Amino acid sequence: MILLRRELGDVLRERRQRQRRTLREVSASASVSLGYLSEVERGEKEASSELLGSICGALGLPLSEVLSQVSVRVAETEALTAPVQLPVGVAAPIASAA
Amino acid sequence: MILLRRELGDVLRERRQRQRRTLREVSASASVSLGYLSEVERGEKEASSELLGSICGALGLPLSEVLSQVSVRVAETEALTAPVQLPVGVAAPIASAA
Repeated sequence: MILLRRELGDVLRERRQRQRRTLREVSASASVSLGYLSEVERGEKEASSELLGSICGALGLPLSEVLSQVSVRVAETEALTAPVQLPVGVAAPIASAA
Repeated sequence: MILLRRELGDVLRERRQRQRRTLREVSASASVSLGYLSEVERGEKEASSELLGSICGALGLPLSEVLSQVSVRVAETEALTAPVQLPVGVAAPIASAA
């Protein structure tokens, strides 16, 4: 199963590193503990909506942009893990035609 | 602050209702309690990544599609709540020019 917290953590870490900022800087700016931010980035802890908002704020990123990037990553993973996926409603066409 | 769990809950409820399915049906299919699903849909409880995956599975929706829809909703709310938003780095142009 694709886990949101892992994809989200990867995106948050990538964006922080792209800004060349340390865990310490961003956690202080977001008013979260360094350990918490580190766990979130590693996908080991679910970020609450409030703390996710604070982390996005500290990174200067709109939440929508982070979610959009996560959505693209998840879609790529879905395509890899389930290459053939029938849309709901057209499954088993033979049975429904019988 | 825009809260992910509220936007996510709205999207999940809307998609379930569009399928004309009850909380009872979807919660049973997702193996989560009816009360939990109801709280998630109302944005009162954070869905763990595992349970979010189960709920998406029960609705027959890829997680990426749900996240994409949430992202669009959040972007709309961001546009309403912060109509003027300067990109990071170009704030206070007068001070930096002085």
